[in-house]
Amino acid sequence: MTDTLSRAVVLLSGGLDSATVLALARRDGHHCHALSLDYGQRHRAELDAARRVAEALGAAEHRIMRLDMGNMTGSALTDPAIAVPEHPTDGIPVTYVPARNTIMLALALGWAETLDADAIYIGVNALDYSGYPDCRPEFVAAFQSLADLATKRSVEGRRITLHAPLIALSKAEIVRLGTQLGVDYALTVSCYQADANGAACGRCESCRLRRVGFARAGLPDPTRYVDAAGAAG
Amino acid sequence: MTDTLSRAVVLLSGGLDSATVLALARRDGHHCHALSLDYGQRHRAELDAARRVAEALGAAEHRIMRLDMGNMTGSALTDPAIAVPEHPTDGIPVTYVPARNTIMLALALGWAETLDADAIYIGVNALDYSGYPDCRPEFVAAFQSLADLATKRSVEGRRITLHAPLIALSKAEIVRLGTQLGVDYALTVSCYQADANGAACGRCESCRLRRVGFARAGLPDPTRYVDAAGAAG
Repeated sequence: MTDTLSRAVVLLSGGLDSATVLALARRDGHHCHALSLDYGQRHRAELDAARRVAEALGAAEHRIMRLDMGNMTGSALTDPAIAVPEHPTDGIPVTYVPARNTIMLALALGWAETLDADAIYIGVNALDYSGYPDCRPEFVAAFQSLADLATKRSVEGRRITLHAPLIALSKAEIVRLGTQLGVDYALTVSCYQADANGAACGRCESCRLRRVGFARAGLPDPTRYVDAAGAAG
Repeated sequence: MTDTLSRAVVLLSGGLDSATVLALARRDGHHCHALSLDYGQRHRAELDAARRVAEALGAAEHRIMRLDMGNMTGSALTDPAIAVPEHPTDGIPVTYVPARNTIMLALALGWAETLDADAIYIGVNALDYSGYPDCRPEFVAAFQSLADLATKRSVEGRRITLHAPLIALSKAEIVRLGTQLGVDYALTVSCYQADANGAACGRCESCRLRRVGFARAGLPDPTRYVDAAGAAG
C-alpha cells in the first residue's frame, strides 16, 4: 500500500447492523478487510449477503473463515433440532450461540495483527440486542482490555482499537445512519431462518426488530419477505 | 452422566505442557473434554500426539476443531515460507501465532458453555514461554474477566473458571509434576518442526526448552529425536 489510509478488520455477518458498520469504517477512512465466519449457521444466505455487501461498500477484501464446530454450540442458529422462536421470550433466547462474539473478535484480532491493522469494527448493539450477554458495552470494554495484553503489537505499544459504533443506537437510528451513508439494505439478510435466496420469514425476533426499525425511522422497508402475510405478521 | 464429577474443557496441543495440564485436571476430579485446534500448523504430528495423550490420560472425549485461517497468520508455525528459528532471538519470535491463545480460549469458552462445564484448563507458562504475550498471568486474568461477561452462564451467576496451573512453574517443575501424575512424555510432541512420525528436530527453541527441563528435573528425556546428533546439539 502506498497511501496513508489505515487498515481495519470489519466483522461482517451480512445483516443490517454489520453492513452499517462497514459503511462507517469506510467513512472513518479505513481500508476495510471484511471478515465473515462460516460456523455452520443455518441461514447460508447470510454469507451470500456478506459477499454482496462487501463488494457494494468497497471493502478492500472479504474473507470467509470456516470453523467446523460440529454440534458444539447448542444454539437454534446452528442446530437444526432446535426451532427458531417466533415470539419474544424472557431471558437469553435459544438463538444465542455460546461465546460467538468472543470467538469472532478473537479471530478478528489475529487477522488484524497479521494485517497490521489499527482497528476492529463490530456491529453489536445493546438496545435491540435480544438479550445476548456478548453485545453489552462491558463486554466490549473487557475485550479491549484483553486485546491490549494479547498481541505482539500491544506489547510494542501499538494498540488495536475495538470499535462498536452501534452499541448505543436504536435500530431506527442505525437504519437512518446507514441510509445516509449509502447502505443498500436490500442486500442484507437479518432473518434467522431466511430461505436459500435470502428471503426473510418476517416472523422471527430478528425480522421483528428489523421491521420495527424501518417503521420507526420512517423509511421504506426494502426487505424481501417469503410472503406478504409474513411481512405483515 | 449420573455421577457428580464436574466437567472441564482442557486445551490439548499434544505437547508436554498441555499433557501435564490434562493430568492435573483429572486429578482435580473433572470429566475432561479435550480440545485441539487444527489451524494448519506445520507439525501435524502434534495432533496425532494429542489423540494419544487424550486416550492415555482418560479424557472423556477429544475433539479436533478445524479452523481454516488460510495464510492469515504470518507465523513460522503455519507459513511454510517462514523458517523455524533454531537459536533464541530477542523479543517475540516468528513462531508467534497472532492471537492464538485468545482464539483457543474463545473456542474453549463456547464449548464449555455448551457442555455446562465449570472450568477451562490451559497449559500456558510464563517462565519458559519464549516471550509470547498471550502466555502471561495478566493475559489469563484479562480472559477470565472477559469470560465472566461473555456467556449466558456468567449472566446467570455460574462462572466458568479459567485454570492455568503451570503459569509459574519452570519446565523442570512441570516435568516432575507430570511424571508424578503418570504422564508418559514419550507420547507428547513439543518440536516446532517434528517429522511426520513425531520425531523431534532437537534444535528449535521448543526442543531446547524441553530438553533442559528433563535435564534440570534429573529425569531421563524420553523424546524421540530425528537423530542423536540433533538430540545432543
